[in-house]
Amino acid sequence: MSNLQEKISQWLQIHRQEAVHFLQQLVQFPSTQGNEASVQELIASKLQKMGLEVDQWELDGIALKKHPYFFSNRETFLGSPNVVGVLKGTGGGNSIVLNGHVDVVPAGDLRQWENPPYDGLINDGKMYGRGTTDMKGGNLALYLAVETIKQLNIQLKGDVILHSVVEEESGGAGTLAAIMKGYHADAAIIPEPTDMRIFPKQQGSKWFRVHVKGRSAHGGTRYQGVSAIEKSSIVVKHIEKLETLRNKRINEPLYKNIPIPVPINIGRIEGGDWPSSVADLVKLEGRIGIAPNEKIEDVQQELDSWLKELAKVDTWFDDHPVELEWYGAQWLPGAIDEKHPLMVILQANYEKVTGKAPVIEASPWGTDGGLLTQVGKTPSIVFGPGTSSMAHFPNEYIEIEQIFKAAEIIALTVIDWCGTENGGVNK
Amino acid sequence: MSNLQEKISQWLQIHRQEAVHFLQQLVQFPSTQGNEASVQELIASKLQKMGLEVDQWELDGIALKKHPYFFSNRETFLGSPNVVGVLKGTGGGNSIVLNGHVDVVPAGDLRQWENPPYDGLINDGKMYGRGTTDMKGGNLALYLAVETIKQLNIQLKGDVILHSVVEEESGGAGTLAAIMKGYHADAAIIPEPTDMRIFPKQQGSKWFRVHVKGRSAHGGTRYQGVSAIEKSSIVVKHIEKLETLRNKRINEPLYKNIPIPVPINIGRIEGGDWPSSVADLVKLEGRIGIAPNEKIEDVQQELDSWLKELAKVDTWFDDHPVELEWYGAQWLPGAIDEKHPLMVILQANYEKVTGKAPVIEASPWGTDGGLLTQVGKTPSIVFGPGTSSMAHFPNEYIEIEQIFKAAEIIALTVIDWCGTENGGVNK
Repeated sequence: MSNLQEKISQWLQIHRQEAVHFLQQLVQFPSTQGNEASVQELIASKLQKMGLEVDQWELDGIALKKHPYFFSNRETFLGSPNVVGVLKGTGGGNSIVLNGHVDVVPAGDLRQWENPPYDGLINDGKMYGRGTTDMKGGNLALYLAVETIKQLNIQLKGDVILHSVVEEESGGAGTLAAIMKGYHADAAIIPEPTDMRIFPKQQGSKWFRVHVKGRSAHGGTRYQGVSAIEKSSIVVKHIEKLETLRNKRINEPLYKNIPIPVPINIGRIEGGDWPSSVADLVKLEGRIGIAPNEKIEDVQQELDSWLKELAKVDTWFDDHPVELEWYGAQWLPGAIDEKHPLMVILQANYEKVTGKAPVIEASPWGTDGGLLTQVGKTPSIVFGPGTSSMAHFPNEYIEIEQIFKAAEIIALTVIDWCGTENGGVNK
Repeated sequence: MSNLQEKISQWLQIHRQEAVHFLQQLVQFPSTQGNEASVQELIASKLQKMGLEVDQWELDGIALKKHPYFFSNRETFLGSPNVVGVLKGTGGGNSIVLNGHVDVVPAGDLRQWENPPYDGLINDGKMYGRGTTDMKGGNLALYLAVETIKQLNIQLKGDVILHSVVEEESGGAGTLAAIMKGYHADAAIIPEPTDMRIFPKQQGSKWFRVHVKGRSAHGGTRYQGVSAIEKSSIVVKHIEKLETLRNKRINEPLYKNIPIPVPINIGRIEGGDWPSSVADLVKLEGRIGIAPNEKIEDVQQELDSWLKELAKVDTWFDDHPVELEWYGAQWLPGAIDEKHPLMVILQANYEKVTGKAPVIEASPWGTDGGLLTQVGKTPSIVFGPGTSSMAHFPNEYIEIEQIFKAAEIIALTVIDWCGTENGGVNK
């Protein structure tokens, strides 16, 4: 273990309890969409105390709306400020964005939670609660990494730009706003819950809605109607075939262990309005995965054409074509070269800290890395603590130890990437 | 044409315009569930003017709740009074219930209506509007039949009991309350929209809800979950097979021209709560038709057992059985002997008035006739003006001429059935 690594590890060890308490505080703010102001206040004050230059601002809906990659269900962003903290380098080094979102998805059905979702209860080395894994735990790893560097008085050459953004869960308006304000860099790390795997490629995704038509009739004479519920199973099956087709095309080695690299998921169905009437309309809502090398527009075009083929499956669709609507949210795909220097540095530090080679994969979901890469020209790596399978689900938790491991790895990576005045790159 | 029939026909002809105007008034009251008080006020005053003894009362939820055949989504019935008008006979004749409901189903999506649903617009011999066909037009035929008899000074021997009830569209609490108050008779006619066909047998029906379970996962790793949406198509298909099985058993000749005598209709589907999550729950809502000779309890048992067989179709259901819930509404099946004297009289008068033999069928839907028959011991015939395929749908209408034909047939039938002091049974 190098001297620097030992110091970082020790510092983290000493401040562990305090850090866990801070995470608990973060979790106790139910920072769902539109309710992020209080948690951002706490974070801004934390970054300030750490000695960063802090910028806090409410998103400008009018300016954002003009951007081609703006996608949101909101027009104004009252109650949803962004916070950016900058640790200025002495110059001549690589800059880095450390990006994390503070918005969390709703807790959902409370009966499915064993403990209240915003308590941040700790048990057996895990902290439970909405947002622990997605991604307040990852955010804590970022604060800790930067704080350690500051506290150990390591003078970085490149700038560290810490994004604490809103709106990741619904289209990325927070990160887009940060980029538009100039907060981009030479590369980025996003500690979304990868379970400590390194994701150089990130799948994008886009939500869609399909309106399936039927013909109404009284349920007692249902043979006089055409059930949109029955027709919708045909549509679901048809879309599944497109998924198979699209995934056969994927030859990205990082996806080799993934059963369905870019899934199409139909997540919601709703139709009909009376038990004893034949349903004349069913709405299907889903997300289509976008491979790292794909353009959103091409994927939209492909689904649209595919749905037109339904008429060949069932003549009903000849005169009653389904309607395709793009709505809700989108995440751009992102990719960083696997040989990118930041990838090399991150992997080396992962090995140094854990003693094992990291797992390199492509992400099964979108992150703000797509926007950072495509709009901010900031190639991004997704790497963080937390179990992705618990994200968005009841009883979400994070293994606390992972957070400190991630903090150590990120601190070392930032030092290597940004360069130092008073520490060596080879510690 | 007999002298009496001619007089009735003439009377109806003379009062036609006035009667159509009254129907328009009835339609202009949007008497959906809970909003029937005003239209009942108008009807009560109409029956009073006609010389009937009028009883108007609000349903007693507490008393009703104790009845085994009470089925409603309401506990109190504020704003929903029943009205019964009695024309006392001189004695010694058969009594008759003339039953009609004033509640209408909601207008639904207003954009699908070519004209406002509660205007009662007349065009080309049809009156348009919610409730025209189901069943204010039929009700008008009843008032006209009784009014003609009164106006022509025909002294009936048997009592005529005119039910103007609420809650038919949601389980029959109105008719049940009327029966419980003693308003039953030797037989009944219900002028639901049969398009002038005679239905001695009425299908019952009952609503159910099936909860189909899946296992949640992020849409990007949907292969880790089990989609309740996909599983629900299996359930829909399985239920369809039960429908086939049940209908193969039907050997009732009255159903011989009906493609599916007792349909099972899945009318609503809803499930999942996020486009990019795998749906872990889908609710299916439907109605199961109950053949005239079936018991509701047996049908419930059959569906329940059938759903348990799902585990043989897909092992998923072994550990994740669907849940069956009976909710919402039910209509008891009903049947009157096809040789019943009232059937004979009604058919004869149909032929007399129209010059054609009537179509005798079994109804594809439930009516309050089931309650009248099974609870009120009042065998019931469903026969009325109006197109059943328009019931519950946008642009509902009734052919006005049918109402007057029905009124004439019903007047003659009541006279024959109840017997007269001053007119002959053989006019």
